[in-house]
Amino acid sequence: MVKSKTLTIALDCMGGDKAPQIVIEGADQVASKNFNIYFLLFGDEKKIKPIINHCRYLKGRFSLIHSDQVISSDEKPSNALRRFTQSSMRLAVDAVKDGKADVVVSAGNTGALMAISKVVLRPLPGIDRPAIVTSIPNKKNKGTVFLDMGANVECGADVLFQFAIMGQAFAKTVHKIENPSLGVLNVGSEELKGNDNVKSVADKIRNSDLDKNFYGYVEGDDIAKGTVDVIVTDGFTGNITLKAIEGTAKFISGIIKEGFSSTIFSKIGYLFAMNSIRRASKTVDPRFHNGAMLVGLNGVVVKSHGSTDALGFANAINVAISLVENKINNKIIIELKQTLESIKSSETNSSVNSSK
Amino acid sequence: MVKSKTLTIALDCMGGDKAPQIVIEGADQVASKNFNIYFLLFGDEKKIKPIINHCRYLKGRFSLIHSDQVISSDEKPSNALRRFTQSSMRLAVDAVKDGKADVVVSAGNTGALMAISKVVLRPLPGIDRPAIVTSIPNKKNKGTVFLDMGANVECGADVLFQFAIMGQAFAKTVHKIENPSLGVLNVGSEELKGNDNVKSVADKIRNSDLDKNFYGYVEGDDIAKGTVDVIVTDGFTGNITLKAIEGTAKFISGIIKEGFSSTIFSKIGYLFAMNSIRRASKTVDPRFHNGAMLVGLNGVVVKSHGSTDALGFANAINVAISLVENKINNKIIIELKQTLESIKSSETNSSVNSSK
Repeated sequence: MVKSKTLTIALDCMGGDKAPQIVIEGADQVASKNFNIYFLLFGDEKKIKPIINHCRYLKGRFSLIHSDQVISSDEKPSNALRRFTQSSMRLAVDAVKDGKADVVVSAGNTGALMAISKVVLRPLPGIDRPAIVTSIPNKKNKGTVFLDMGANVECGADVLFQFAIMGQAFAKTVHKIENPSLGVLNVGSEELKGNDNVKSVADKIRNSDLDKNFYGYVEGDDIAKGTVDVIVTDGFTGNITLKAIEGTAKFISGIIKEGFSSTIFSKIGYLFAMNSIRRASKTVDPRFHNGAMLVGLNGVVVKSHGSTDALGFANAINVAISLVENKINNKIIIELKQTLESIKSSETNSSVNSSK
Repeated sequence: MVKSKTLTIALDCMGGDKAPQIVIEGADQVASKNFNIYFLLFGDEKKIKPIINHCRYLKGRFSLIHSDQVISSDEKPSNALRRFTQSSMRLAVDAVKDGKADVVVSAGNTGALMAISKVVLRPLPGIDRPAIVTSIPNKKNKGTVFLDMGANVECGADVLFQFAIMGQAFAKTVHKIENPSLGVLNVGSEELKGNDNVKSVADKIRNSDLDKNFYGYVEGDDIAKGTVDVIVTDGFTGNITLKAIEGTAKFISGIIKEGFSSTIFSKIGYLFAMNSIRRASKTVDPRFHNGAMLVGLNGVVVKSHGSTDALGFANAINVAISLVENKINNKIIIELKQTLESIKSSETNSSVNSSK
C-alpha cells in the first residue's frame, strides 16, 4: 500500500442547500476518475449511509465520522465557532489541523467556515487576514482570479497587497500561468482615480517585485473581458460585484430559456441549436467554476457554493486536489518572502541613495 | 403658437464614440414620434449639417449653435471645466442655466459633464453631492433604480441618505411607482453585516419617513432579481458593480451568439427561434435602458452611454423628456423637505421622551 501517495480529503457532508446528497454524489463522481483519493466524511450517518449505498466508486475508500451538530446557513460565525465544536464542519477542519486530512471542502456557511478555519488553522506567517479567492469565467480560457470575495469587509492597503501576492500564487498554481498579470479594481484606469486605499496599494505594488506583472487599475467590465489574470479588491466590493455577476448571468440565462419556450417555432429552433448552445453555456456554467479557496491559512480549505449540485461539488473537490498537489501554501510562503524582501531592498537602496 | 407647451432640449452633439451621427439620428427618431419638441444642437456645424440633411423629422425644429471645442473622453474634469468654456457640452449645459433649454442630454465624458453641471447649475437646496442614477434591467417590468453610478467615490451616511431620497423621487417620477421600496447595497442581509457607512445610513433611514418603504440591506444579486425598486450605494461600489453587470451581459450574449453560429444545425435553429430570442433579448438590451440622470442639480442633465447608437440615444432623450414633464426636481425638493422634517420631529419627540 503506497499510503503516502494517497490524498485524504475531509468533507463537511452537512453544509449546503442539498446536503448531504450532493456532497456524497460529488465525491463519488471524483472517486470514479481519481483512484488515489480517500475521503473522511463528517456528518449524520443516518442521512449519509442510504446515499452511499447507491454510490458505485466510494466503496472502501472512505471513513464515516458521525456528527449530529449542523451549522445552519444563517448561524453567526461567532456562535458557530463557540457552540458548534462537534459540528460536521468543525470536525472536518479539525481533521486538517490534526494532519488526518490534506484538505477540507465544505458547501456550508461561509462566515462560519472562515471563522473556524482562522481559529483552528491560524493564518500563514506574514498574512494578516485570510481571504476568499475564486475564478470568474471570462472571454479567455482561464477564469479571472478574483479576491477577496467577502471575508474582509474593510481592508487597508497592506492587506490588499497581501491579497495580490496570494492571488498571483493561486493563478500560478491553479491556472498554471507563469507570470500572471495583476490588476487593482477601481472606478477608472487613470492614475488619479479611486479612493485612498486603492491608490496606496497601487503604490505599494509599484514599489515591489509585483510591479513587473502589474497592469494597473482595472474596471468592473474587465472581469468578464479577462483583461488581467488576477484582480484584487476589498471584501465589500468583491462580494457585491461577484453576486451582481451571478445574478446577471442567471437573469440572462432565464430570459434566453423563456425565449426558446415561447412559441412552437422557437422550440423547434432550440432542438436544432441545442448542442451548440449547451456547449457555449458550459463556459459560464457556475458549476464548472465552483470551488473557492480560503487562502492564507495553515491548511487548505475549499468553499463550495451552497446551492450547487453534485457536478459542482465534484468540481470544488477537484480544485482542492489541484491546490494540494501543487503545494499552494508553500508557494504563497515563498512568494510572500521574496516580495517582502524586494520591498526591503528597494527601501534600503532608496535610503542609501537619499543619504548620499 | 402654443410656445409654452413645447419642450426645448439641448443636445451636446459632439459627445460619445459615434458623435455627432448617433446624436442627430437619435433626435430625429424622437422628433418622428413627438411633435412638441424643439432641439438646440451644439457642435461642429460642418459635421452636423450633412447628417441633418438626411433627417426627415428634424427639419424646422432645431437651432444649430456652432462650437469647435470638443471635450475628449479622457479629458480631466477639472481641465474640462476651466479650459473648455466654449465646448459643445458646456454651451449645452449653459443653455439650461440660462433658461433657453428645459434639459440637456450628452453622451460625452461623464466626469466633465458632472463637473460642469455642478458649477454651472449648482446643487439643489439640501443636496450636498449630486449623484448619477439609472435603471438596471431586472426580472420585473420596471428596472432597478440604482445610484450612485460613480460621481462620488467616497460617501458618508448623510450623502447616502440624500441618495435614498433622490432615488425614491426618481422611481416615483420615471417608473410611476407610488411607494418605491428601498434597499441599501451590502454584503449580506443581516443587520450586523457591512461597514460603518452602510450601518449608519440604514439607521438614519429607519429613523426617518423613508422607513415605511425600507426593505433593509440587499445583496449584489438582488439588482437583477428586482427585490426592491431603489438601491443605494456609494459611487465606488456602484460604478464597479454596474460595469461588472454590463461586462457579464456582453460576455454571455457573445457566447450565445457564438453558439448559434457554430454549426449548420445551430444556424437553422436560430432562424426558427430568431423572433422569440430577439423579443427576449430586448429586456436586457442596454439601449432600452440608456439615459442616466445627474440627479440633485438645479436643472435636468441626462447622460447617455458613450458607446450607444441612435436608438439608445433616442431613449436617453425620452428619459429626459419624462423627467422634465414630470417635474422631477420639484418632487425631489418636496421629498427632501418632508423627510428632513420627519427626522427633526422624531428627534424632538425622542428628546421630549428622554427628558420625561
